[in-house]
Amino acid sequence: MTEPTAPASQPATNVGKIVSLGGGHGLFQTLRAVRQLPSESITAVVTVADDGGSSGRIRRELGHVPPGDLRMALAALAPFDEEGRMWEQVLQHRFGGHGALAGHAAGNLLIAGVYEVLQSEVAALDVVGKMIRAQGRVLPVCADPLDIAADVAGLDDDPRIMREVRGQVAVASTIGQVRRVKLYPENPEPCGEVVDAIADAGLITLGPGSWFSSVIPHLLVPGVVESISKSSAFKVVVLNLTAEPGETSGFTAERHVHMLSQHAKGLKVDLIIADNFSIPNQSDRKYLERAASLLDAKVAFHDLRQNDGKGLLTDRHDPEKLAQALLYEFERRGR
Amino acid sequence: MTEPTAPASQPATNVGKIVSLGGGHGLFQTLRAVRQLPSESITAVVTVADDGGSSGRIRRELGHVPPGDLRMALAALAPFDEEGRMWEQVLQHRFGGHGALAGHAAGNLLIAGVYEVLQSEVAALDVVGKMIRAQGRVLPVCADPLDIAADVAGLDDDPRIMREVRGQVAVASTIGQVRRVKLYPENPEPCGEVVDAIADAGLITLGPGSWFSSVIPHLLVPGVVESISKSSAFKVVVLNLTAEPGETSGFTAERHVHMLSQHAKGLKVDLIIADNFSIPNQSDRKYLERAASLLDAKVAFHDLRQNDGKGLLTDRHDPEKLAQALLYEFERRGR
Repeated sequence: MTEPTAPASQPATNVGKIVSLGGGHGLFQTLRAVRQLPSESITAVVTVADDGGSSGRIRRELGHVPPGDLRMALAALAPFDEEGRMWEQVLQHRFGGHGALAGHAAGNLLIAGVYEVLQSEVAALDVVGKMIRAQGRVLPVCADPLDIAADVAGLDDDPRIMREVRGQVAVASTIGQVRRVKLYPENPEPCGEVVDAIADAGLITLGPGSWFSSVIPHLLVPGVVESISKSSAFKVVVLNLTAEPGETSGFTAERHVHMLSQHAKGLKVDLIIADNFSIPNQSDRKYLERAASLLDAKVAFHDLRQNDGKGLLTDRHDPEKLAQALLYEFERRGR
Repeated sequence: MTEPTAPASQPATNVGKIVSLGGGHGLFQTLRAVRQLPSESITAVVTVADDGGSSGRIRRELGHVPPGDLRMALAALAPFDEEGRMWEQVLQHRFGGHGALAGHAAGNLLIAGVYEVLQSEVAALDVVGKMIRAQGRVLPVCADPLDIAADVAGLDDDPRIMREVRGQVAVASTIGQVRRVKLYPENPEPCGEVVDAIADAGLITLGPGSWFSSVIPHLLVPGVVESISKSSAFKVVVLNLTAEPGETSGFTAERHVHMLSQHAKGLKVDLIIADNFSIPNQSDRKYLERAASLLDAKVAFHDLRQNDGKGLLTDRHDPEKLAQALLYEFERRGR
């Protein structure tokens, strides 16, 4: 008796060059997902509007681009071998104690030191990336630090009064309703490397992440929306699994998409990927699809939530599930 | 007409494994010298009693071994190519500004971060050494931070009163006369790797450097003197070019050697290398030779001072000249 021969497996689809735009934990999970796709290269494009924690301290003290989200993206790209995991830990390690270093991430200080020697954020990130043998490149969306500011309602007795709340931490933790965000300085210059990477991409992802502080800021940098819309890449928005307390408190999926189209005139994407479990209701799905049409996009629902290991679903994207969803949708694009 | 053929050059003497004990700028220059010798390997053994500056802050805040002298030794071992020089600059780079990071060396913070992840100073230094492709290994003489304390005369009206001055900065800057130094904790455990390296060495150097805070502390770690004396290596003390303001103010070369023999019972070395220019006087040379005999050592005089590029001699050892002197003396050892 002979074993049945397995059918010759199809050659895996190569998605080409991947560009993932975002920041924070959302981008970390996305990078962990796209690493699993057959691709030519990965470029993470990271917001630089953070003003909290270790990043905010480095930014205020030394005038650098806040390194935290850049560091986290590098950590997400560390190889899965012993040395890679060690560097991932070192980058992410936070000093304890009660002194001047408490709370600083070791990787932030390393990026800051290399930056001060090389005087280029892009060069510094390439050096640290090479050092940890990162499986992709990390770029700041702009070479200079940005500030976000939000028009917020509901901070006064009179609900018609809108106040400007400035700074990422303030926006993320406002008790009011964010109506719109903008950048200071307005119209910052995007990194040339970012525009080039978007133009060459085969797959572009935007999100998930803090909508107003990690996702939308990318779209407020002149040239980014245009280059995304012009790019022949397969363009995907990955929606958040839940609304976030603070900046998107109470937001539906539909409203998340409305916010994108309001902030990014002319933005065209191919697909919005949403989580099955998060939007079970058929009428909510219809609303989402209607909003998606503003971006010329379809909507696809997939199981995306990470399991906590005890059978419960978490509020984080599972890199494996997201990778499968992205590959599935990439393969059926245009059909 | 044919060019005369050059005589076949002698195969360069290989000095075997090199161990250089010291700290600070003195060790930096020594490592730059011994890198020029044909050798099997280089191990820097570094004091860990510093309590000033960036090192002192890390030590007090996080309880680590002070990283500054370790970092400087790594920087001295960076390759002389573009990437090596970049990492040397990053390790040595000090943050400016007026904030919590001002004055911290980027390399100190990197070593501190890797140490906290690996929980081993030896492993952390090996990792950072590998990262910069260091041309040798850097070891702390002990795995735990040390304090030096000195018995100092001349701080009171009554010159017979001796006071204990504690801490490297305090000892280095005392206006009194240092009579003797000791370590806290007393009798610390040396790093096993240090004892092994000394046992296997073909060439051991001690000094130059701050005599009481970078050189003598090595000899107060139990086991170090014994392993140096037992080692079959060629053992060389490199004397300072001048007395230092503060801790060795007014000390003659002879007195420097007396201090070694007083602090290190049973220490035997082969040679003391002194600078020609620093001790021009024949009677001073005789005194130095007499003191050297306490260590069973001979004295050799060489031109060792670095030129400042404008024809003036500095108070630093020239790595090239020191390398030549070491090789010359190594080759004529025992003759």
